[in-house]
Amino acid sequence: MSSSDIFIGETIGTALLILLGGGVCAAVTLKASKARNAGWLAITFGWGFAVLTAVYTSAPLSGAHLNPAVTLALAIKNGDWGDVPVYWAGQLLGAMIGAALVWAAYYGQFHAHLTDKEIVGGPGAQATTAKAVEAQEKGAGPVLGVFSTGPEIRNTVQNLITEIIGTVVLVLAVLTQGLNDSGKGLGTLGALVTALVVVSIGLSLGGPTGYAINPARDLGPRIVHALLPLPNKGGSDWGYAWIPVAGPLIGGAVAAGLYHLAFA
Amino acid sequence: MSSSDIFIGETIGTALLILLGGGVCAAVTLKASKARNAGWLAITFGWGFAVLTAVYTSAPLSGAHLNPAVTLALAIKNGDWGDVPVYWAGQLLGAMIGAALVWAAYYGQFHAHLTDKEIVGGPGAQATTAKAVEAQEKGAGPVLGVFSTGPEIRNTVQNLITEIIGTVVLVLAVLTQGLNDSGKGLGTLGALVTALVVVSIGLSLGGPTGYAINPARDLGPRIVHALLPLPNKGGSDWGYAWIPVAGPLIGGAVAAGLYHLAFA
Amino acid sequence: MSSSDIFIGETIGTALLILLGGGVCAAVTLKASKARNAGWLAITFGWGFAVLTAVYTSAPLSGAHLNPAVTLALAIKNGDWGDVPVYWAGQLLGAMIGAALVWAAYYGQFHAHLTDKEIVGGPGAQATTAKAVEAQEKGAGPVLGVFSTGPEIRNTVQNLITEIIGTVVLVLAVLTQGLNDSGKGLGTLGALVTALVVVSIGLSLGGPTGYAINPARDLGPRIVHALLPLPNKGGSDWGYAWIPVAGPLIGGAVAAGLYHLAFA
Amino acid sequence: MSSSDIFIGETIGTALLILLGGGVCAAVTLKASKARNAGWLAITFGWGFAVLTAVYTSAPLSGAHLNPAVTLALAIKNGDWGDVPVYWAGQLLGAMIGAALVWAAYYGQFHAHLTDKEIVGGPGAQATTAKAVEAQEKGAGPVLGVFSTGPEIRNTVQNLITEIIGTVVLVLAVLTQGLNDSGKGLGTLGALVTALVVVSIGLSLGGPTGYAINPARDLGPRIVHALLPLPNKGGSDWGYAWIPVAGPLIGGAVAAGLYHLAFA
Repeated sequence: MSSSDIFIGETIGTALLILLGGGVCAAVTLKASKARNAGWLAITFGWGFAVLTAVYTSAPLSGAHLNPAVTLALAIKNGDWGDVPVYWAGQLLGAMIGAALVWAAYYGQFHAHLTDKEIVGGPGAQATTAKAVEAQEKGAGPVLGVFSTGPEIRNTVQNLITEIIGTVVLVLAVLTQGLNDSGKGLGTLGALVTALVVVSIGLSLGGPTGYAINPARDLGPRIVHALLPLPNKGGSDWGYAWIPVAGPLIGGAVAAGLYHLAFA
Repeated sequence: MSSSDIFIGETIGTALLILLGGGVCAAVTLKASKARNAGWLAITFGWGFAVLTAVYTSAPLSGAHLNPAVTLALAIKNGDWGDVPVYWAGQLLGAMIGAALVWAAYYGQFHAHLTDKEIVGGPGAQATTAKAVEAQEKGAGPVLGVFSTGPEIRNTVQNLITEIIGTVVLVLAVLTQGLNDSGKGLGTLGALVTALVVVSIGLSLGGPTGYAINPARDLGPRIVHALLPLPNKGGSDWGYAWIPVAGPLIGGAVAAGLYHLAFA
Repeated sequence: MSSSDIFIGETIGTALLILLGGGVCAAVTLKASKARNAGWLAITFGWGFAVLTAVYTSAPLSGAHLNPAVTLALAIKNGDWGDVPVYWAGQLLGAMIGAALVWAAYYGQFHAHLTDKEIVGGPGAQATTAKAVEAQEKGAGPVLGVFSTGPEIRNTVQNLITEIIGTVVLVLAVLTQGLNDSGKGLGTLGALVTALVVVSIGLSLGGPTGYAINPARDLGPRIVHALLPLPNKGGSDWGYAWIPVAGPLIGGAVAAGLYHLAFA
Repeated sequence: MSSSDIFIGETIGTALLILLGGGVCAAVTLKASKARNAGWLAITFGWGFAVLTAVYTSAPLSGAHLNPAVTLALAIKNGDWGDVPVYWAGQLLGAMIGAALVWAAYYGQFHAHLTDKEIVGGPGAQATTAKAVEAQEKGAGPVLGVFSTGPEIRNTVQNLITEIIGTVVLVLAVLTQGLNDSGKGLGTLGALVTALVVVSIGLSLGGPTGYAINPARDLGPRIVHALLPLPNKGGSDWGYAWIPVAGPLIGGAVAAGLYHLAFA
């Protein structure tokens, strides 16, 4: 694969991933959406089929990593680091484009949600602490949640461990793909299994931190959240931002080590 | 494929698509249905597996486009416009037949829903504006929703953009199919992936407008809604009708352009 | 395939189908079940994956019809009626065994449900009409629903039409299977698609009558319901019993005719 | 396959199975989880896709039994008992590792749940019988449920029968796998079908006992529950522990016998 095919493929694929993944969060949480309150099963299947759509579409160009932790693990496994910067650049750019497209598709919903008096309170609602917390929980919190992940219980070690464990599961499954399909490459069936593995991680390990398990998935949209002119959007929670980057990268490296020990 | 196989295949396939797709909307929203209030996940899986059933059954005859936007994009990609009118005619006819079959399968439910006093009010309920709006929301609104899509927030530019984005995702996945499956044609696995891509679009991008992403899916049933002798059915919302036709056609063309730039 | 393989395969397969299909109805509706109130999506996926499990397990022996309407349609298509009685006998026997196994697996739940005072009322609850209707709705009704289907709105023509339409969708998909998979027989992927087609029919066409779409699925368990010594079980609704037998058989014949006209 | 590959494969695979299977129980039942109250459908799909992830990842090393009842049935079928102890040892060790990883991933949620005053009561809540029962139901009960299964209605014969029936369904499907896929081994598609069969068993037969259908799945995590320093965790219900071990082993043997009679 040429560098330009890799870059274009990762950009398109990660844009699709975040458009559909962020999209399901918008659909389920924002006001004036037909899918509002569709629940956690909708979120996890939504992200899983986002992976399917994105991998299926971009695989012919770049092999569809769509995740810096996957790229890292494959570089460790194959001992070939040459294309890593191209993959990572495409992934981050694609994630930002995808987040901007969610904003375009749900423009009216974002505005309705963030200016609704029942949700964020009337004039002066931000003035007192208790009301500000409530408005954050009902208004700006879900909006940030469309873009980036956040923990239910904020604890650095705990949150890191959860993200590492989730990413190890994902990357181990990706690394053993070649062993299952006779080295025929990813293929349609491989894309489907990867998607359902992501549903699995969401259902089983998403409870504490919202399963970033992908640095680009969290960082790219968070940057877009910081840049977008959304009313009453609140902060982008940069204090947490390094955990869904570091955790998945550590998880990818751990999975590569486990693969080397047990499967190679 | 002969023109008659194409016409028959598209008619049968699109009829199945709308029978099952409209059917799940009737099942979830109408009175006296066992599936009432089964929620958005039921709607989106229902439409996705409708695509699976329809594509799987009609693919041997016509290749199973079942969507004028898909036909348009393939014509642009292949530079061959000869069969486009036959595809489009079969799709529109099939969509109308499918909508009539939903009416046949849910005849009692339609009647029960539209004549229920708790739902549409008693005699004179249509007389005052406030009551008429309420009756529309509880009675005629869901009935029209069995046939055609409508926006949560009515805004021409916004609604068009959402339909365009959703259709681009669908058509890009369809166009790259040949690249994934070694040119072996659609196949059973391709039908399954297409179905799950439609579930993905529904979960992630269906919130604002109800994801027509297919001109025939919306226009054909809307015509049938206008023709059917349903009591208290209200209008067919023709003011909105051009958006779920134009949006998907624009989206199909945009996807064909993107494909040409990135994949060809 | 030998007659004994066909008989054993259909018996085992249909027993699995009804064990798992009736099982999910018991799981979702009976008292003291962990799955109680899991909803329509659970019912429809439960029946679909019941088809998958049953077809996958019995296909090597008998080709896994598991449905007299499918056997009828294949006999019409192939002009070969020799094995029809063996298939039908195995299907009916298997359905009865499956229903008995549901009773064994949920023995405690059946008893708890039918003797619970909050559900079926205290002593004398059956004495007055209003109380008897209420007890039927909360107690004996769901128990019969574990075994057989029943309509939401009781209307012979309407209910027949709905069962015919649902069965046509199922049988058309089964008949076109050979066209999709290059005549390689059912296969694992074919079993999976058939299962998801059944989920589709459940979600989209199950609302009015509970989608028997299979004469053995309804008749066999209804006989077992009549025979089992369940307390307060009420009647087996034999007045409705012919519709989920006749409707699917008509639907199978219609689908075979449609296949002959359009695909053969 | 070498003994060390078998042992490592079964350990990794069963650890993944229990991490993801126990994980979904933690996600749905514990306080401070984003998936709380996601319902039975989430539980059953969570366990099913846990099977998919675990089988897919470990199949290249050990063939992915991940269940002593499957190993027993295959030993009976093939008349080869040599590797049984290695499989069983890996499965039990893996299950214990998986349960410990659930504890690591949900550490904060376990602590929050078991020390929450609204859930387990304030100081002295364990003092009176009624309050202790309530605390058990709301606090320690769900926590034990993350690790091991328990019946809704406690009855030895009844609970054994339900576990036997569920395991027969699972093992029959596993044993017929070779007949469906032309002896090509498990394969990706076989892993997917097995996963959906487990979803089916969960939806249809999980209501009474929580479907252990696997001795290692229940015993390994129960040992870990007994060992972990969780506050207010209550007992590990050792009186019930033999049923989800004996039931599945009996079921595996019954399925092997049925296979020999009908399919071999």
